Amino acid sequence: MPTVKVYIPGTPGQYPVIIEPGLLEHAAEHLTAYAGHQVAIVTDDNVAPLYLEHLMTELSSAGITGCSIVLPNGEPTKCQDSLNQVYDFLLDHRITRADAVLALGGGVIGDLTGFAAATYLRGTHFIQVPTTLLSQVDSSVGGKVAVNHPRGKNLLGAFYQPELVLIDTETLNTLDARQIGAGLGEVIKYGCIMDRDLFAMIEYCGCRPGLVSLYPEIIARCISLKAQVVAEDPFDTGHRMILNFGHTLAHAIENAAGYGTFLHGEAVCLGMLAAADWGEQLGCTSPGIRERILKLLENYQLPTVLPDTLSADRLFPSMVLDKKSVGKEIRIVLLDDIGSCHVTKLPAERLLSLMEHLS
Amino acid sequence: MPTVKVYIPGTPGQYPVIIEPGLLEHAAEHLTAYAGHQVAIVTDDNVAPLYLEHLMTELSSAGITGCSIVLPNGEPTKCQDSLNQVYDFLLDHRITRADAVLALGGGVIGDLTGFAAATYLRGTHFIQVPTTLLSQVDSSVGGKVAVNHPRGKNLLGAFYQPELVLIDTETLNTLDARQIGAGLGEVIKYGCIMDRDLFAMIEYCGCRPGLVSLYPEIIARCISLKAQVVAEDPFDTGHRMILNFGHTLAHAIENAAGYGTFLHGEAVCLGMLAAADWGEQLGCTSPGIRERILKLLENYQLPTVLPDTLSADRLFPSMVLDKKSVGKEIRIVLLDDIGSCHVTKLPAERLLSLMEHLS
Repeated sequence: MPTVKVYIPGTPGQYPVIIEPGLLEHAAEHLTAYAGHQVAIVTDDNVAPLYLEHLMTELSSAGITGCSIVLPNGEPTKCQDSLNQVYDFLLDHRITRADAVLALGGGVIGDLTGFAAATYLRGTHFIQVPTTLLSQVDSSVGGKVAVNHPRGKNLLGAFYQPELVLIDTETLNTLDARQIGAGLGEVIKYGCIMDRDLFAMIEYCGCRPGLVSLYPEIIARCISLKAQVVAEDPFDTGHRMILNFGHTLAHAIENAAGYGTFLHGEAVCLGMLAAADWGEQLGCTSPGIRERILKLLENYQLPTVLPDTLSADRLFPSMVLDKKSVGKEIRIVLLDDIGSCHVTKLPAERLLSLMEHLS
Repeated sequence: MPTVKVYIPGTPGQYPVIIEPGLLEHAAEHLTAYAGHQVAIVTDDNVAPLYLEHLMTELSSAGITGCSIVLPNGEPTKCQDSLNQVYDFLLDHRITRADAVLALGGGVIGDLTGFAAATYLRGTHFIQVPTTLLSQVDSSVGGKVAVNHPRGKNLLGAFYQPELVLIDTETLNTLDARQIGAGLGEVIKYGCIMDRDLFAMIEYCGCRPGLVSLYPEIIARCISLKAQVVAEDPFDTGHRMILNFGHTLAHAIENAAGYGTFLHGEAVCLGMLAAADWGEQLGCTSPGIRERILKLLENYQLPTVLPDTLSADRLFPSMVLDKKSVGKEIRIVLLDDIGSCHVTKLPAERLLSLMEHLS
């Protein structure tokens, strides 16, 4: 099975990301380090019926006392109220710093649970079991954990690394087409910013069914790319910014459309197209790149058209509040070519005029 | 002026702790790194009338845009509601990750503000201006930030280092005797666990008025000791535990008596006496140590008698939930002699029987 070792400088050590079809069937063998302790599972009502009971059995056979909380699925769960429910759950079960918290689910569950793990008793052991393509390629590596605030996405959060990530690619079989699409959006992002071969491989494959057998390889490749970037910049103060290609607009879209209207990876598709357009307007992105990305997104039935209701005027205010904004300048990621990118700062007004051209 | 450089492995770099009588009068010169940005001050209604206006002037003369929020003084402010007020304040002023959050006050303000700084936008720049003896010697170094939960003290928190600490020892002139006493409790703790000369110096001095001229030296000494311990164990997984001498019982006392009944440093005095007693009962603390600490505490008018209402039965449950408990064993710090200590694990029942002897 492919195992990617992730090492983040300044944290206690490297952690393994284990990727294997059917991994959850024999998860116990990877959890023996927690024998004699409790593992508190946080999951949602989509995922729980599929995997929770079996995972509890695996814990038990590894000599671990399991307990669980099942939250409603979907982005609205990534909020302070749910966070408080998780805190109460951990307190009810007297979870100590010697125990572990395990996120079983997609990005919402991973981010929420990770933030709870980071802040409960100033930090407990944290295990990720991501079950969506998006969370498998992206959110389970890098330590970004957060909840949303009524005034913006991910406004409350921390940097906190898991100590083990278990990826069972068979969980992808239960996802609907939209969720797979959202994950593909992030996969294509990695191709755009730093791996032209990955991008070309997806172009060559041409359609979703062809990709299925490639998932373990694609996921391992994305994680390695991300791990490399995160290791260089664990606190997101510089180079890591490239991972936010397409995200400045994507967060604004998610915010303006109301959380949950667009899946994160869907909004990223629109954000990548916009950023390619800005780069071409500014003359720093090779001509035709936007078209090439557009074609790929269309082939994979991914969103390419911004709804009329989301005008530049409506999206712009949340972009200025985004964490990546520095005073009145906004940092954005632009492509040079497929597989190569750079970070730049634009005055807010300049970005607004680029956006107006878009809409 | 004494400046202690604190370096915490795994964090971006070392940070200076500048200690000087009258430092706030010319704080601007230490804040020039933030010129052109915003500094958001969090303070309380005890401290604001004394220093806020002048500090805003200093910010302004350093080319910084200042803004402030004034919270009620006292331990009840260290809660999630106040945390949300601080988040809203930061959002209202559109504070970005390029700006800084400044805690002006004692440990409550420092811990609350630090937790807000750690979790707002996944972390903003953080400056500490501690104004009590306790926060000057202790809580402004080491990166422990937290808020209380209705079910226990400091249950929600993080490790987050400030990048600058400004200590004006003249702020101590405005403290009442109880607050000075609470700080002295922690100072004596440093003597007990790792600095017999500091302990002897305080014994020799004999009374509070004699200590005043020694504050800059005492504070610098305590901070250096703490910095040394924290650098060895930034995430509090081992050696740093020695800083919790007296704290296992102290947290339980604060919890059982209701937050705010005892000041933290007062509860620590009672906790240190108890831990000395447990150590003598177990035969690992030299005989007579408890008596020597008792005499010192009495000379400095510090609490030495546990109220009748706080029986072992009442205190024990919160000790078991304390972060330092590992399963059914409880880790405690015991003295070998003045200036030397060790960490040990005791079964919960054994500790209960030691405590019953106490009461």
